[in-house]
Parts: sequence; C-alpha cells; structure tokens
Amino acid sequence: MDGTLQERARATRRSLLEAAASLFAERGYAGTSVNDISGRSGRTSGSVYFHYASKEGVALAIVEDRFATWPELAERYTNDAVPPMDRLMGLSYDIAKALAEDPMTRAGARLWAERDIISVPLPNPFALWTTAATRLLAQARTTGHLAPHIRPAPTARALVRAFFGLCVLTEALEGTATIPARLADWWHLTLPSLQPAPGSGRATGRR
Amino acid sequence: MDGTLQERARATRRSLLEAAASLFAERGYAGTSVNDISGRSGRTSGSVYFHYASKEGVALAIVEDRFATWPELAERYTNDAVPPMDRLMGLSYDIAKALAEDPMTRAGARLWAERDIISVPLPNPFALWTTAATRLLAQARTTGHLAPHIRPAPTARALVRAFFGLCVLTEALEGTATIPARLADWWHLTLPSLQPAPGSGRATGRR
Repeated sequence: MDGTLQERARATRRSLLEAAASLFAERGYAGTSVNDISGRSGRTSGSVYFHYASKEGVALAIVEDRFATWPELAERYTNDAVPPMDRLMGLSYDIAKALAEDPMTRAGARLWAERDIISVPLPNPFALWTTAATRLLAQARTTGHLAPHIRPAPTARALVRAFFGLCVLTEALEGTATIPARLADWWHLTLPSLQPAPGSGRATGRR
Repeated sequence: MDGTLQERARATRRSLLEAAASLFAERGYAGTSVNDISGRSGRTSGSVYFHYASKEGVALAIVEDRFATWPELAERYTNDAVPPMDRLMGLSYDIAKALAEDPMTRAGARLWAERDIISVPLPNPFALWTTAATRLLAQARTTGHLAPHIRPAPTARALVRAFFGLCVLTEALEGTATIPARLADWWHLTLPSLQPAPGSGRATGRR
C-alpha cells in the first residue's frame, strides 16, 4: 500500500514538473503561474504547494532534474572504446540537441537565464561540463591527440562557455533548427587548434 | 533661443538615459520603474514620458544608443595600417571592455537579454559585428593571413556567437574582472585554426 502511494506521488510530481517545464520553456518564469501549472497538469494548485511548496520550488526541481545535472553525462563520456576528442564532440552535439528539443532541459536553461527574478539560487551545469571536458582533453593528451601548447583546464573552460553561447545565441537569432550546422561550423573552426599539427610527430622523429 | 532649448532637451534626455542605464544594468527592466528613473536623474516622471513616451521607449533608446549600434565600430576596423587579424582581436577586446565597464552598453546588453518581457522589439548588434568580422577575415585572406579552409562568412558568425557567449557566461560565473583573461584563453584556442599552418607556404615551395 505504501508502495502504491509513493508511486502515485512520484507520478503526480512528474506530471507537475512536465507541465511546468513546457510552460516555463514557452512563457518564462514570470509568465507562468501556479494556476497555469495546475491547469496544464490537470492537478490541483494544492498539489503544487504540497509537493514543491512554491513556484520557486517547482523551478528549482526542474533545473535540478535535467539542466544542472545531466545524469547520463558521466556514462557517455567514460566509454573508453571511443577516442576522447570524438567523445568531446559527441557530448557537445548531445547537449545541443537536448537544449534544442528536450522540454525539461529547455525549461531549465531558460529558468537559469532568468535566475535574477527567481528568489532561490539555481544550480548550473558549467562546472560539471568543464570537468568532463578537462578530463577528455587530458586523455587526448595521453593518447597523443592534443596539440602540445593546449592546457586542458583553461581550454575546457573556454570551450564550454563558447559552446553554450553559440547554442543560446543561435537559438535567439535563428531558432533551434540550425544549431547542429552552426555547431559544426564552430568545431571546424576550433578543432584544428586542439589537434597536433599534421606530421608534427614525424618531424620530431626525423631529428 | 531655439538652440538653447534644443541643447537643454538634449541634456535632459542624456541625464534620463544615463540614470535609466545604471538602473537597468543593476536591477534589470522589471526591477526599474519610471519613478526610479525620475528619482535617480533628478528630473520629473513627466519628463520621462515627454521625451520617451514610456519605460519601453527609454529601454529602446538605450539599446539603440550603444549596444546595438557601436558608432565607433566602423572607424576602428577600417584602419588599414593595422593587420586585419590584429584589428579583429582588438575589436573583440574593445567590445568586451565595454560590456564589462560601460554602463550604457551593459544596460543595452541586459535589456536585450530580457527582451521577452519588454513589449517593443529591441535591435541587436550581431549582424553588424558579423559583417565587420567577415570583412576582416576576407582582408586577411587577401593578405595571406587566413588558413585556406576557412570561409569568412560562416566563420565570422561562429566567432561572434562564441565570443559573446564567452563574455556573458564569464560575467555570470566569475564577474567581469576575468573577462580579458578568458578572452585571451579563447583567442589562444581559436587563432591557430584561422592562421595558415607555419611553413605551409615553404612546404608548397619545396615541391
């Protein structure tokens, strides 16, 4: 019986979060009320207050659920069968896709962008992404796939910020459909700097 | 007499815009009222309505005054005495400095970020920046300072978006003081991809 109640509570929370996420993603935080969340989810306003205490509580739960945590991130980037630079690029396309298409991630990103008007501190994923990128660059160094002058930590920090800016600004200026193509342009521009010069290994070998 | 009246009106508008810019930059659009602008400028609320019709009108005037127009941009980037890639980097540091330090530019950028809650369309500078960067990359091609696989237009678009994202996210995560250092990290990462490979001319000459 307890199990059933817990399951029902979990289903209620999920439907509240999904309804709230689609509203926050469309209309922003200020444009969405607890009544709107209740209306779209088909649950009562009392249910919102019972499970999340406030609209801020719902916003925090959404940001924590996807945008700030990326639960599958660790799994994706630790697959040693794939070369580290390929994993780094693959991760960037995965994240760009979620930012463009997944309502929970989109809502989290929009709420984070609107954090100044939300009265609870919202976590962000940038430290997590930067750690992941730093490790992948360090692995690329070990396997000989990183240019000698590239330092993993500051490079990862710059990559993460430029990447996120590219996604957000592309969406603002053109919509989400062109994000993968713009991301490809950006990698085309960035990757050669990261890789060792072609033949540099051989050049050293000759001396 | 007319000249004096015009001058006085111009001085009034300037003091209203400067007061409003510092408020918008600090508190955002929703957190600033016409009364606040009147209070900080020492002018009446009637003066705000007389010159700008509404708070939206003040916001639009601020965005148009600096952030979206960059009146000095054309002048800076057409100085042929400086190599084109140096002008491109110089421009990026100039813009980053204004985004970090100039209240009118900061207010413009924040208002543009908050455009969803402002009921007039706000212009942005990205097409202008991209045109400037495209021309500089095309000039670098002419003078032999651009890698052969780099196409100026899509590269300029990616550079502008990544650059702006880097500035905005660095400010959000660390404050404005580290922006120049982070921008240097980013150029360190980006510039080698743009430049012809060292010795590529000589390599061709050997064949």
